[in-house]
Amino acid sequence: MPPDSGPGRYTVACVQFEPVIGDRAGNLAKIEAKVRAAHAAGASLVVLPELADSGYVFDSAEELARLAGPVPDGESAARLVALARELGIHIVSGLAEAADGHFYNAAMLTGPDGYIGTYRKLHLWFRETLFFAKGDLGLPVFDTPLGRIGMAVCYDGWFPETFRTLADAGADLVAIPTNWVPMPAQDPKAEAMANTLHKAAAHSNGLYIACADRVGVERDQPFIGQSLIVGPDGWPLAGPADRSREETLLAEVDIGGIATVRQLNQYNHVHADRRRDVYR
Amino acid sequence: MPPDSGPGRYTVACVQFEPVIGDRAGNLAKIEAKVRAAHAAGASLVVLPELADSGYVFDSAEELARLAGPVPDGESAARLVALARELGIHIVSGLAEAADGHFYNAAMLTGPDGYIGTYRKLHLWFRETLFFAKGDLGLPVFDTPLGRIGMAVCYDGWFPETFRTLADAGADLVAIPTNWVPMPAQDPKAEAMANTLHKAAAHSNGLYIACADRVGVERDQPFIGQSLIVGPDGWPLAGPADRSREETLLAEVDIGGIATVRQLNQYNHVHADRRRDVYR
Repeated sequence: MPPDSGPGRYTVACVQFEPVIGDRAGNLAKIEAKVRAAHAAGASLVVLPELADSGYVFDSAEELARLAGPVPDGESAARLVALARELGIHIVSGLAEAADGHFYNAAMLTGPDGYIGTYRKLHLWFRETLFFAKGDLGLPVFDTPLGRIGMAVCYDGWFPETFRTLADAGADLVAIPTNWVPMPAQDPKAEAMANTLHKAAAHSNGLYIACADRVGVERDQPFIGQSLIVGPDGWPLAGPADRSREETLLAEVDIGGIATVRQLNQYNHVHADRRRDVYR
Repeated sequence: MPPDSGPGRYTVACVQFEPVIGDRAGNLAKIEAKVRAAHAAGASLVVLPELADSGYVFDSAEELARLAGPVPDGESAARLVALARELGIHIVSGLAEAADGHFYNAAMLTGPDGYIGTYRKLHLWFRETLFFAKGDLGLPVFDTPLGRIGMAVCYDGWFPETFRTLADAGADLVAIPTNWVPMPAQDPKAEAMANTLHKAAAHSNGLYIACADRVGVERDQPFIGQSLIVGPDGWPLAGPADRSREETLLAEVDIGGIATVRQLNQYNHVHADRRRDVYR
């Protein structure tokens, strides 16, 4: 499907669903069905959750070893590469990556012409530190026909430097596969802190941010849903999605309009106004 | 008034009010009455809005020149220094400062033993750039009996580096005199972007943040109120205050508890988890 109208205007989808720990075949079947539905609804870029192929709460390194695969040649990655190629769209998905004797909590970007690139989660959360190696690929930004796309995963979004670094590398849109969990002292009725953090990051950096979260409870770990697509002014374009139901968010983005949004007024620009002479 | 209970536990007040442009005597009288009331309500630290003594929308540099004064010896600053000394409390207020042939959009911290220090706004907003010099004192943090206090003013809060720099300098609490204005594309019913930004900054840095905003419309410029006191977990302790009415927020803080909040779990710490090897 071509962009909706004009250069840099197209539809982003964030697929919120519930992966099942250990059931790679079932997860990939569900992913494929949901990506096809998002494509049918007009999406040119589809974002999927963190570790969408494997599930999240590993019992052991051995369990992760059985589920992780190489990128882009393993079963999960190859399936997504083929799907994006067939549909002529871009896909970002979280995947359990096996490489060089390590495991990475990775995100892969693939497009109509095949595999584009990989990001490996820099900031590991909780027991991830027991199973995964820390990301060693920096914060790459990839030039695509849909703009310059960066990726980050879940807890990466807690660090303002993630978005600053991506913005300084020219990112237009940051795709965030995530498995958000409740934060300490969270009022369950209040807006998720994750939503607050990504609205702030989008506003302060003038970035589109597309967060695809999972839902459900896995081995006693609840996930909070509330996937969100935010515009470069920091206001939500779609979502937050439901807290527990599967749901696909759709939003139109306008990459060409970002420069105008970043120029807040005739005197102020979200990037140019920084006082790099002062910050430590 | 002593701290409420235990070391590092005390009450912070944010005074939201409507200064009148050009009426320094009237503004100082109102400030004094509101500070006395906050003290009577138990506050050990009182935060006042940006340019609380002068008003905000200057017609000309000449108007600003008539309103600005030296810190801490000018009329406005000296009045606040005497008031804090008399009441035995700390006060942070925005002031129009004249120094060395320049004007600064400043914040002053003063306490029971007199003047403590000054901050000069680093990031100037809109027509402030016509009248004020950019801050040249960095982002100082002052050791006080109430903890390590930093200051920032309004648009400074749009830059995540402001809070990172203050946190790295050991700040426990950031006092923010502000004159927040509506952001582009703001849904007037939605939470203010300013509130979003400061909740995110408090959470990502493990800082108390106390924002005292003004209200009212001055020379066609509306201000949005919604003053806010946020805890180091990012959740509001008091506020947001009303969008148009004068109001004083009160919240108890626990400086000694910050270290525990910053340690999110046995594996994660909001500062230690940073990947400084990667950020640019």
